[in-house]
Formats: sequence, structure tokens, C-alpha cells
Amino acid sequence: MKAIVYHGKEDFRYESTADPRLQSDTDAIVRVTRTAICGSDLHLWHGGLPEGIGASGGFAVGHEFMGIVEEVGRNVGSVKKGDRVLTSCTVGCGTCPMCKRGVYSGCRVMTAGGGASNVFGFSQGLPGGQAEAARVPFADTNLFRVPSDMADDQALFLTDILPTGYMGAEFAEVGPGDTVVVFGCGPVGTFAQMCCLLRGAARVIAVDLDDGRLERARQLGCDAVNPSKVNLGERVLELTHGLGADASIEAVGREDLILQAAMVTRPGGRIAVIGVLTAPTATLPWFLLFMKNLSLRTGLVNPQIFIPKLMPLIEQGRLDPTVIISHRLPLSEGPHGYEIFAGHKENALKVVLKP
Amino acid sequence: MKAIVYHGKEDFRYESTADPRLQSDTDAIVRVTRTAICGSDLHLWHGGLPEGIGASGGFAVGHEFMGIVEEVGRNVGSVKKGDRVLTSCTVGCGTCPMCKRGVYSGCRVMTAGGGASNVFGFSQGLPGGQAEAARVPFADTNLFRVPSDMADDQALFLTDILPTGYMGAEFAEVGPGDTVVVFGCGPVGTFAQMCCLLRGAARVIAVDLDDGRLERARQLGCDAVNPSKVNLGERVLELTHGLGADASIEAVGREDLILQAAMVTRPGGRIAVIGVLTAPTATLPWFLLFMKNLSLRTGLVNPQIFIPKLMPLIEQGRLDPTVIISHRLPLSEGPHGYEIFAGHKENALKVVLKP
Amino acid sequence: MKAIVYHGKEDFRYESTADPRLQSDTDAIVRVTRTAICGSDLHLWHGGLPEGIGASGGFAVGHEFMGIVEEVGRNVGSVKKGDRVLTSCTVGCGTCPMCKRGVYSGCRVMTAGGGASNVFGFSQGLPGGQAEAARVPFADTNLFRVPSDMADDQALFLTDILPTGYMGAEFAEVGPGDTVVVFGCGPVGTFAQMCCLLRGAARVIAVDLDDGRLERARQLGCDAVNPSKVNLGERVLELTHGLGADASIEAVGREDLILQAAMVTRPGGRIAVIGVLTAPTATLPWFLLFMKNLSLRTGLVNPQIFIPKLMPLIEQGRLDPTVIISHRLPLSEGPHGYEIFAGHKENALKVVLKP
Amino acid sequence: MKAIVYHGKEDFRYESTADPRLQSDTDAIVRVTRTAICGSDLHLWHGGLPEGIGASGGFAVGHEFMGIVEEVGRNVGSVKKGDRVLTSCTVGCGTCPMCKRGVYSGCRVMTAGGGASNVFGFSQGLPGGQAEAARVPFADTNLFRVPSDMADDQALFLTDILPTGYMGAEFAEVGPGDTVVVFGCGPVGTFAQMCCLLRGAARVIAVDLDDGRLERARQLGCDAVNPSKVNLGERVLELTHGLGADASIEAVGREDLILQAAMVTRPGGRIAVIGVLTAPTATLPWFLLFMKNLSLRTGLVNPQIFIPKLMPLIEQGRLDPTVIISHRLPLSEGPHGYEIFAGHKENALKVVLKP
Repeated sequence: MKAIVYHGKEDFRYESTADPRLQSDTDAIVRVTRTAICGSDLHLWHGGLPEGIGASGGFAVGHEFMGIVEEVGRNVGSVKKGDRVLTSCTVGCGTCPMCKRGVYSGCRVMTAGGGASNVFGFSQGLPGGQAEAARVPFADTNLFRVPSDMADDQALFLTDILPTGYMGAEFAEVGPGDTVVVFGCGPVGTFAQMCCLLRGAARVIAVDLDDGRLERARQLGCDAVNPSKVNLGERVLELTHGLGADASIEAVGREDLILQAAMVTRPGGRIAVIGVLTAPTATLPWFLLFMKNLSLRTGLVNPQIFIPKLMPLIEQGRLDPTVIISHRLPLSEGPHGYEIFAGHKENALKVVLKP
Repeated sequence: MKAIVYHGKEDFRYESTADPRLQSDTDAIVRVTRTAICGSDLHLWHGGLPEGIGASGGFAVGHEFMGIVEEVGRNVGSVKKGDRVLTSCTVGCGTCPMCKRGVYSGCRVMTAGGGASNVFGFSQGLPGGQAEAARVPFADTNLFRVPSDMADDQALFLTDILPTGYMGAEFAEVGPGDTVVVFGCGPVGTFAQMCCLLRGAARVIAVDLDDGRLERARQLGCDAVNPSKVNLGERVLELTHGLGADASIEAVGREDLILQAAMVTRPGGRIAVIGVLTAPTATLPWFLLFMKNLSLRTGLVNPQIFIPKLMPLIEQGRLDPTVIISHRLPLSEGPHGYEIFAGHKENALKVVLKP
Repeated sequence: MKAIVYHGKEDFRYESTADPRLQSDTDAIVRVTRTAICGSDLHLWHGGLPEGIGASGGFAVGHEFMGIVEEVGRNVGSVKKGDRVLTSCTVGCGTCPMCKRGVYSGCRVMTAGGGASNVFGFSQGLPGGQAEAARVPFADTNLFRVPSDMADDQALFLTDILPTGYMGAEFAEVGPGDTVVVFGCGPVGTFAQMCCLLRGAARVIAVDLDDGRLERARQLGCDAVNPSKVNLGERVLELTHGLGADASIEAVGREDLILQAAMVTRPGGRIAVIGVLTAPTATLPWFLLFMKNLSLRTGLVNPQIFIPKLMPLIEQGRLDPTVIISHRLPLSEGPHGYEIFAGHKENALKVVLKP
Repeated sequence: MKAIVYHGKEDFRYESTADPRLQSDTDAIVRVTRTAICGSDLHLWHGGLPEGIGASGGFAVGHEFMGIVEEVGRNVGSVKKGDRVLTSCTVGCGTCPMCKRGVYSGCRVMTAGGGASNVFGFSQGLPGGQAEAARVPFADTNLFRVPSDMADDQALFLTDILPTGYMGAEFAEVGPGDTVVVFGCGPVGTFAQMCCLLRGAARVIAVDLDDGRLERARQLGCDAVNPSKVNLGERVLELTHGLGADASIEAVGREDLILQAAMVTRPGGRIAVIGVLTAPTATLPWFLLFMKNLSLRTGLVNPQIFIPKLMPLIEQGRLDPTVIISHRLPLSEGPHGYEIFAGHKENALKVVLKP
């Protein structure tokens, strides 16, 4: 089959690679109908992931994909050949102590390989879905059927970044009446904003340096602040009667924005960090966190938990994830997709690929 | 001053009554600018409340009102003469063990008189606000300042039925992706529906026998079911892939609807009863509740808890409580307001009175 | 094999019955080493369950049992022949929408037969474990391995009544510093008391008419009240500075005790009903529940959720479930066990049977 | 009156200072009967607090104290002259938006002075209670009556470190069946351990380098590990079947122990930091926190929230806070108390002073 194959830093090629095959009775093979490039894929593209992740090449990349079940192992009960499905980007076995606690991202079986061995498209052990087909381990846990009247583009982002955005709102315990500052209006930040509103936030303050992205945030119902033009701290105090935001979500992946978040959040507030900081350590404003009683949460997403909550909202038209799609390309043009997304060219926000 | 004064069953009169005066250093006097007739007022109108509530007459009725602070006791710190304020319909002292736990409705000081002695307009001890002015005990706890740019009609229902509707969604633990059945499309039911959507419900199924009310529910984003025309149980199963609703809210006050709620709610679901059943006891489908692991919650509202969550949502335009107003009358026509509301005349849904 | 077989009201016989056999790839056969008679078994013994439950006889009874895995279906992954295991009394498939929500007792597969078809020992479809062996469906979900150094008697009650007692404390949201009234000092009430203390209750008030049972409660650390000798309501007020209990747990199964619970619980408190009322309906003090903002929860237990929390506490010696065992009999004397337990003879509190 | 007065680094003197006087109608004056030296006082003793805290001297130190009400302002309603009371170490006004949210430590009125202006004994604005008397602002919010049969030594630590230890268990969401690692067996660590057990932890692993302190932890029911002798990581894995701890509590105040906590905690676990790191920033193992989905909470304690939960547990004998007292000295020997506590002399664990 054809796939986007990793060969090293900034060297992703559309080429032939081995067809996926069932390796276990709990596997399924999915023929991919839609896949997308994620910000996390760029960590591989740019290099710089902690040692041991994606070190050797030759595997298909991509962890956001959906398609049609082509074949299932004999112990797979919840899906069958021909079913339209989407995957979870992180893979769990479903029965280890971590999966039983709902922390699929910490699955003891799938993470035994270390690094990001439980995320599609970061190692030879679990090739990705920017490909014509992919093998999905523990299909009963990691595949979800898609309603027949839901378009691929509507469903696709349930695989990763819509749940990631939602997780941000959940980690920040966003609830009715809250004011929330969301740092970043990229795909994940946009979904975090939408999910905050969905959970009843009274006010979402979207922060970005790109006025185009801010404009979209405004259209989604956010207040928009460009901190290169407006003093963010003062603006937040002004909007909150001097109190500060109830919660903040960092959706970029920069240490200095955690400090910003700590500064604009009121005492007793919550900070969620869903942007990925790839450095091993981060220096945080600890005394400020202490004096302000702030909680801090980060983590890999577990789409398995959030898909059942989010899918009905898409079905009912209350969430439209397609707002972030800027480019639709054939899979063969995937490497070009990476270039424009990584290079911030052509206003690329989210690149969807079709095999 | 003038007020609507209770004289007995179906005998409410617009007449002169004593001006309210400060009785304690923690009291405030509010000159009323807007008030409304509540479904709970009808329990007094129709008679039939448990013995001891509203037994003797001669007091102003009404527990939904707002206005301008006219005078405050010397220990009142949070509001001052001239402030625009709204009240909580249930009154707490703010410092007893129940108030400290947030259960103002169970305030040990205010409920010492028994019955509904902690609700405005049900006894001589705490006359109501369908009047030109009213005394508000423990003003620091029970008065809330209204933003200057928020219209009276927008703010008024924060005094009772908007928090009551919200409490329904909270008691039923409504969250993102849920399907909720709301029995009743009256004022409280409508607010419950709006609050379920606000908290991220994927689908709210509004149930009523009145097609006009159902049409309004549909416009708010609900599915609407008239059980005299459609089999409700079948319809819920159809909409939930055979599973049943995640939660139900009874907003009418009828025992048989609790049974209906138990039938349409899935195992492990939650039922909130915010309609007021005035009989001392109710017969419930206990074995069904047991086999289905259903939780059941009811209670008097504590607006003090919910006002801070809901007010910013009105400010931001995410909640428009005025949708329920059907009639605006001068206070002097209050008795007529009761007649049309109690008699289901003129499509009366919510009658607002202006002194 | 030999088993206690149901033949009708008060007619349970120790006799030969068909050996259990694997019926599905997800089944396991367990050779029973220890089993116990539960208060719920008495509902079958006495008759009076709602129509359709246990109507026809000829099956082994009993839903509390543990043993050694003798055979597993080819899709069973978590246990193997020779493993020492205990079962969950309610059986879930583990993958239906209800099981995925943790409501195994509402499993759509297992409850398809109606009635109590998902509880061992109430129907021919799912024979019980008061037998030399039993078939356990969906073994990966419903069997739990027992640590090698944990005695059978320590582990046995994890199958049902220890989780039921714990569920009472959870439904009543018992937490540090709470005062809780527990109605009933039978096996389930005793476990509820122990679990309230375990969760940090400051005071547990045990209520029973039997002074012997009260004495055991006192030894476990409870205050004990015999309401035939002391005015319960006054005593609770006295112990709680006039406030009332934070929560109550009904562990008997009597409608009038729910009224008692509502009376002794403070406004905003929580009532859990873990005693089984077998009548289809119950008449509750609704207006009192409403005025006091009381929540009410009941339900079938899901041991699958609670076993992972409770087993380590037994391992560490913080919970000793054997305190309730009053009789140890060979399985062959099971019918006698029923007689003394049902007849309140020989101070029978909990009868354990050994095949 | 006499007091321990701050004059600079390691210069605390027992000397005469001005008597406290009512400054507001909401103040109370408390004649101190018992006070204690807290690890946080040592930050002042050693110097090194962030700029602006305790810069100028001349005030009484100490934030853990209790006594008898001597005088109250005219708006104080909940306590009166002669009442036996304890204080909260952090002071809130009770009515600002932060206090209404239960974040008294972020009180907008009391923190207006910056730094630690809302904690007794860190500034001239709010002198401490290592003195014969002290002024308590907003007495209705910050004073708590002590039951007549509770000894001073039993009640004293409710002012700060017992709630701090409890807060650790709450921030780490410790619940029934959990395994928790607590770093540090000083006074706060010891209380954290006791509170974890109180909330139902199955296993508490106490970590310290001091074998004497570890022995006390063992007597309280903990497993004890001296990491200079045993590999902590391996030991935790061994005790948790290879899974890691459910939660960790850092009760020392060292950056490197947060890394240790992240290493021994399982994916999806929770870390609470109740030890005080006084440096403005801390460098954390961010990528590890991310890959393991760990939550992190720190903050100043709000005793006002926890006292009502903890006081009944002391009353009932379920918590004995006196286990940490190593020295009882007259107030006049306070400076010596600081020397031995700061210098780890005489096995000083907790020094209690009596005026």
C-alpha cells in the first residue's frame, strides 16, 4: 500500500510500504478513508522529541484517521468487516489495571515499549494511519462506529484533537458561568474554546498573535485578545471585575504561557496545559501557583473516554468540528501538507488527507 | 404602601398595607421595580399546602422581586441605598451551620418558624415582594447587585425560577453529550431545558400536552413530544439507540410523572424533581428505581448558590430568560394576573408585574 | 454435581443437578470453595418477588461464591485454569453501553431476559453458586483473582454484600467528619457501618432492635441506638448539636425506615437505601424530602467497581469482613442454613457454606 | 503585653509590645492560651522569603494559636467574650468574591497588602499569636469555638497544619483503597499520613531519612521507607504489583521530591505539594507529567473549610493530633524553641508554647 513514511527530520515520503496484517485475534485492519496532520506529528517532523521516540524510521506516520473495517481478528466483537469506524489515537488494551481505571494512555501492555509506543505513527511497532490502511490493536477498545449520516470530516477529529480540546476544558474544570482564557487559536485551542462554551462558560477569552485566527475565535463566540496589541493581564481583570479568570488553558506548548496562565487566573483557579512541551523539564512560577492555590493538569488524551460524550453533540449539530479545516489534499500530497502546516504557509490550520 | 395581599384561597387583593421597616441591623428595605407571579404562589392561591403554611392572611405575597435599595441596617456591608438589586426567594442568615454548608433553604434561623417561613410571601413573618416595597432579612446574604446594563426583565428570574431550572439540571447531573427528558414546558420546565442545553446536553426531549408550549421548546433547540399523540417511551428509545435517557427532570409536580421519568431513564441515570408536589407523601415505583439504579433528588432552591453562575451568562447573552414572559401588567392588576395564570387563560406563561 | 436447588417457596433442596458447561467462548467454570446465603436469597425463599423473578424452579441458588477456575472459554484472557477467583453477584458483558458506563447491573446483554436475569441464582439462565461448581459468563469482566495469602472467608463477601455496604456509604456520599445513621445491623448494615468509618465518618449511629447486634456495632466503633428504648430522633439531635445527621443509610428494606431516615437527616443531606424493598411501589414522605433538600439513591450493586477499592483494604488488614460470620456449614446442610437464617434462629447473622 | 517579636533573620525576641486593640467592628481580641511554632515560621527565621514578605520587623510572629475571646467588635455575632476559640492561620473577610468561593486564602480584602498579608505573624498589619493576645479580623469568619471537653493541645493544630495535612490528602484525591506515598514525616507529613488513612487509603508509604520519624509513621499504620537505605521506586512498584502509587504528597518543600513523586506515581495519578518551596520558580519534570497524565496541586491552606470536617473527628477520638508534640515550653522560651526546631536539635518535631 501507499503511505506517508517517516525517514527522519523533515523527511516524510509518500511511498509504498508493507500492507498491515492482523497480528493478534484482537486486531482489526482499517482501510483509511480520511486522515489528518496533527500538531503532534510536527514534533516528529521538526525532530526534538525526547530520546527514544521515533528514533528509527521506515513506518507510516499519523494518528488521526478513520475508515472502513476490512478484517477483524476472531476475538473482536464490537465491529465487523464493512463497518465505518474511527480510531482513538492512543491505544489501550482495555483490560490492564490502567485501562480499567480509564487511563488508556498509560496502558501497561501498549506502553511496555516505552516512549510513545501507544500512539499511532511514532514507531515501527504501531505504524500510523496516513496510509491506505492501518492495523488497530485491541479493536474492541480503540475503534468506534460512526453513524451513517455523519460525514467523515465531521467525525475525523474525534480521533484526537477534539477530545484533546475537550480534555482541556475538563482538566480546567470549566463549568457554567466561568470565564476562561485559552492561549492559542490553533486547531486544539479552537476546540478547547468550543468545548468551554459547550460546557457553559460565560466568557472565553481567546489569545493569539494571529489576527485571522482571532477573528475565527470571535465568530465562535469568544472575546479575542492579541497580546502584542493589548495588555492581556489588564484586559482579563477588566472583563472579570478585577477578579481574574476562573480557569486557563494553554494550547500552544510554551513554558512562558504557563506563567501567563498563572498570572491571569484567579486564586483557587485551574490551569490545563494541553499544548505539548517536548523538553524534559519546564520551569514554573511555583511560588505564584502556591500563593494562588492553582491546580495544574496536563496529559496525553484518552479519546476513548470522551468520544461517547462528543459524538452525540456532533450528531445533533451542537458541535461542528469542520470549522478548523483549511486544506483538503490527496494522501499523495501529504508531504506538501506537512510543509505548509509546519511552515505556517497558506494560512494552513488543519490539513485533511484523503487516500 | 400598596401590595397584593393574601386573604385566603383565591382571594388576593391589591390594597394598602403597612410599609416595611427595618427590624434588625442586617435588614434592608427594597423599593420594588419588578416582580412576578410564580407557580408556587398558586399553591397558596389554590389552597392545599400542608397545614401551617400560609394559614392566616393579611400579608403581601410574592417571592420573585427586585428593585432599588432604600435603606439598610447598620451591619449591612455589601449593598447600600440606591443600589439596584435582586433577592433570593429563599432567605438564609448566612452564618448558621446549614447556611455555611450552602443549604440556605434549611437556614436554622429562618426556618425556626416552621412551614415555609424562609420563603418570601408565605407568612406574616416574611411578607412578599408583590408590593411597592419589601424588607429583606440578612441583606448581605440574600441581596445581589444587578449590573447597570442588565434590564429588569433579564435579571428578575434569577430570584427563583431560573435557579430552580438550573438546579434541575444540576440535580440530574446533566453534562456534555447527555440526552435528557424534561417533563413540562411551563416557566420552570423551559428554564430547565435551557440549562440542560447550556451544560452541554446533546439532546433535550421536552414533554408537554400543549402544542404551543412544545413549539417554543422546539425553538429553544429541544426535541418536542406530546405524549397524547406519540408514545413517549418508544420515542425516547428510538432517539437513544434503545438505551433510554441519561437523566430526566420533572418540572410539573405530579407523582405519575415520576413514574414516567423512571421508565424513560436508563439504568444508572438520574431523576430530578423540581415540580412541587404539595401532598405530604408520594407513591413511587421503588422496585423500578432499585433495579435501574436511579438516583432521585428534589428540594427547595438556593438561588444564592446559582446566581453567581447564571448572572454572567445573562450578561454575555448566552441565556435570555425573557423568553417566558407572556404578560406584563401593573401591580394593581396583580389579582387579574393570578386569575389568568391559575386558570390557564390568555396563554399565560409568566406574568410580570410593575409597581 | 450437588447443589442447593430451588423448588419453590421455602423449598430449597440439596440434590444432584446438571454440571455447568461452557456455553460461550467468554465463559468460565468455577469449582466453588466457599459460598454464603444472602438476605436477597431470602426473597426467593419467602416468595413475594415481583412477578417473573424466579418463577420456575430447578436451578441452583446463591450469588455469593468463590473458588478455583476449572475451565475457560477461548476468549477469556484475564484468568486461567487453577486461578483462585471470586465472582461479582451481578453479571455484565463488559462492552455494552451500560457496562461501559460502569452500570454492569444494567447490562443490556444480561438483562435482556428481564427480572433478575443478571444475578446468579434467580433463574435457570444463570444458576447460582450454592453448588459444587458454576458457570460464570463474561469471565474477564466478572471474575477477580484473589491474592494467595487472603483466606476464603476474608475474600468471600467481596462478591456482593461488602460492596453493597460500601455502595451505601457512597450513595450517601459519606465523607470525613460526617455523622451517619445506619438503619439495621444485619450483615449489610454492619458492612455499611464499617465502610462509613473507613471513609472518615466521625460518628456512625447504628440502629437496631436487637441488643446483641447493637453490641457488635458498638465494638466496631459505632454509637448504638435501640429505638424501642430510646427516642431516635431526639438522640440524633443531641449528638449533632441539634442539626441532624449528614446522611442516613437504610439497610433493612422497610418503607417506614425511609421516613425515619428523612426525619433524622439534616437539610441538604443524603439518604441511601440498600435494604431491598420488594414491593413494586413505596410511599415516601415527599414534601419532607422536598423541604429538606434530601437526595435519595438506591440500586443493585456493581461489585465490579468496588472490588478494586476494597480488596487492598482487606489485604492490608484495614477491613475484616469475617466479623459477620455466625455459622459455617457444609453445603449439604444449606437448607438448614436457610431455615435458621430466615427464621432468625441460633443468632444466625451470616451463614457460610463449604462444598 | 509580651510576645515573640521579629527583628530580622534568626533574631526573634521575647519582649514587650503594644497590646492589640479592636480596629474594626468585625474584629475580636483573643487572649492566647496556646500557640505553636510552624515550619512556615522558619521561612521567616531563616530569611529567604520572596521580597516584600516580612521585610520590616517589630511585629509578633506566629500563626497557630488559640485562646479565650476577650473583646469583640459590635458586628461580631458568632463568638462573645469568654468563648474558647481557635483561629484560622489565613484570614478572609468572608464576603468578597474569593471568600464566597471558599478561597479565603485569596481574600481580596486581606491580600490587598500583597505578600503574606493575610497570614498572621508575617507583617505589621497582622501581628501573630505567639503572644499573650492577638487581634483577629473578621472574627465571624476566622474564629471557631472549641468544645469544652476538648483539650487545648487537641484543638491547637486545627489552626493550620492539621488542615494542611488534610488538604494534601484532598488535593491528591486520596480515597478508599488507594496507595499513597507521603514524602516527609515532619508535622505536616505526619498529619497528611493520618488523613490519608482516615480517608480510607489502603496503604500509606511514608518516606524520610530519619529513622526515628519513620518509626512513628510505622506506629501510625504506614509502611516506612528510608530512601538512603532502600530504593524507593523499586519498593513502591513491589508494593503496588508494578503499578505505582495512586497519589503522592510532597510535605517537605523540595523541588527534587516533586520529581520523585512524579516517578513513583502511576499514570493518571495525583500529586499534592504541601511542603513550601520559597523560591519563585521550580523546575519540574514536565514531559513525565505529560506522558503520565499527572495532576499537580499546591496552595495555601484554608482552615475555614476543613475545621468543620476535622473537629468532630478529634471530638470522637478518631484523630489524635497531639502525637506530633515534642516540646512544651513557656512562651518566654519561644526563642529557644525556634533554635531547637530550626536546628533540628533535641529531636524537636513540634514546639508548643504557653503564654
